[in-house]
Amino acid sequence: MERGVFFVSDRTGITVETLGGSILAQFAGVAFRKSTLRFIDTPERARAAAGVIEQSARELGIRPIVFTTIIDPAVRAELARGGGLVLDLVDAFIAPLEAEFGRPAARAVGVTHGALDTGRYTLRMDAVNFALATDDGLNEVDYDRAELIVLGVSRSGKTPTCLYLALTYGIYAANYPLTEDDFENPRLPAALAGRRTKLFGLSIDPRRLQEIRQERQPGSHYASLKQCQREVHQAESLYRAAGVPWIDTTRMSVEEIATTILQTTALQPRAG
Amino acid sequence: MERGVFFVSDRTGITVETLGGSILAQFAGVAFRKSTLRFIDTPERARAAAGVIEQSARELGIRPIVFTTIIDPAVRAELARGGGLVLDLVDAFIAPLEAEFGRPAARAVGVTHGALDTGRYTLRMDAVNFALATDDGLNEVDYDRAELIVLGVSRSGKTPTCLYLALTYGIYAANYPLTEDDFENPRLPAALAGRRTKLFGLSIDPRRLQEIRQERQPGSHYASLKQCQREVHQAESLYRAAGVPWIDTTRMSVEEIATTILQTTALQPRAG
Repeated sequence: MERGVFFVSDRTGITVETLGGSILAQFAGVAFRKSTLRFIDTPERARAAAGVIEQSARELGIRPIVFTTIIDPAVRAELARGGGLVLDLVDAFIAPLEAEFGRPAARAVGVTHGALDTGRYTLRMDAVNFALATDDGLNEVDYDRAELIVLGVSRSGKTPTCLYLALTYGIYAANYPLTEDDFENPRLPAALAGRRTKLFGLSIDPRRLQEIRQERQPGSHYASLKQCQREVHQAESLYRAAGVPWIDTTRMSVEEIATTILQTTALQPRAG
Repeated sequence: MERGVFFVSDRTGITVETLGGSILAQFAGVAFRKSTLRFIDTPERARAAAGVIEQSARELGIRPIVFTTIIDPAVRAELARGGGLVLDLVDAFIAPLEAEFGRPAARAVGVTHGALDTGRYTLRMDAVNFALATDDGLNEVDYDRAELIVLGVSRSGKTPTCLYLALTYGIYAANYPLTEDDFENPRLPAALAGRRTKLFGLSIDPRRLQEIRQERQPGSHYASLKQCQREVHQAESLYRAAGVPWIDTTRMSVEEIATTILQTTALQPRAG
């Protein structure tokens, strides 16, 4: 038997999906049919959403679960008429904070984090353009503008990490691919030598690297386990010799890699 | 007077930062000193975090606010010893769901959304590589593999939108830049004509476009208001004539553009 689950937001729904998903993941063995209802920011839209929720209750024969982060009380009231079990991820925390701060909350949309800030948008876009322009060792001269230079062998996750840091935090992150040439001597490549404080290394289990490379170039020398082992070993030796902080990304998501770098380097997000 | 705020997570902290930030944004006029404590997944780490929280209380002379999404009760118990006002964004919702489902929650980390799923990682990486390979009209042949083709004039936000959809949802999104050549006749460019159902258009206020282009090529014809007005007008005419759904991105964040596209096209995230 499936149960309907609705993630309802007055904005993008990204946060309510993630947090609601984490909470539901604590219940193994319950089958869910999940939907996200985004941009529910007027009583009219909430009424339509309530209709969808009622429909799920009728169709599946069981009360749906409704996670919401809607701020406006009038919109929330309409939503509640859909009859689901409403779990309000914002409102529950407003009252204790009102008591703590000794002042009422605004209870208005649009004051929320990240809305309509063109300065922040521009910063993030510049950072994405920077990541693209310096991707894979292009334009080494731009390393001066980089706040972070991510090192790693081919397919170790450098590009998505840099793009994620740019898109989410507005961080100027370049990446530098370590190749055979860089391993010929135990020192940092010339392009990086004067920029040690900006460097961060990625590593990966050679077997996982082999899998990833096989998908791109099946049967190649490049994708052989031996070559992957060799490159990973040399990259890790270089990190150690040069004192570059590094992590093993094998079991990490892009978000985890990016936030671990933030944590380790104490880089300050400029547009988070 | 500033008040310390801590976003504490057993994983990346991205969700607790966002949701906690939205909640705090409801309180204008209160000054916060915000920090994120990530990967707090053992009692030892929680003890260290509690120390940081205590330190803030002493230094600022006021009880800190602590938002947390930590799952493990033992870790949470240690954190609570820091003495802040703890607002638990997960635990508050576990009990009502246990009652509703008639079964206990696992209360364990690692079962949460997105952890250690290499299939999902690979899908997202493939999608990022696809977005990069087809960026700005490169490799038109790959449009067959695209689930979505984002249209727009230069600097209207196509690339970050496609990268965001790839990184976050594993969606294969290509982008196609509309240029003077495409405006010579009122039909869709040949590369797009057979793929109407995959198309989505971006538009933007010409004055905002001018600002963005001026930063890249100050004083150019390309960045003149007249040229921006002309291109935007022609792009919108094309969308209307060809029946391509489109949005005005002027006041939207990348997240909002991406999720609006999901909403409008009913594209299914493959790795959300």
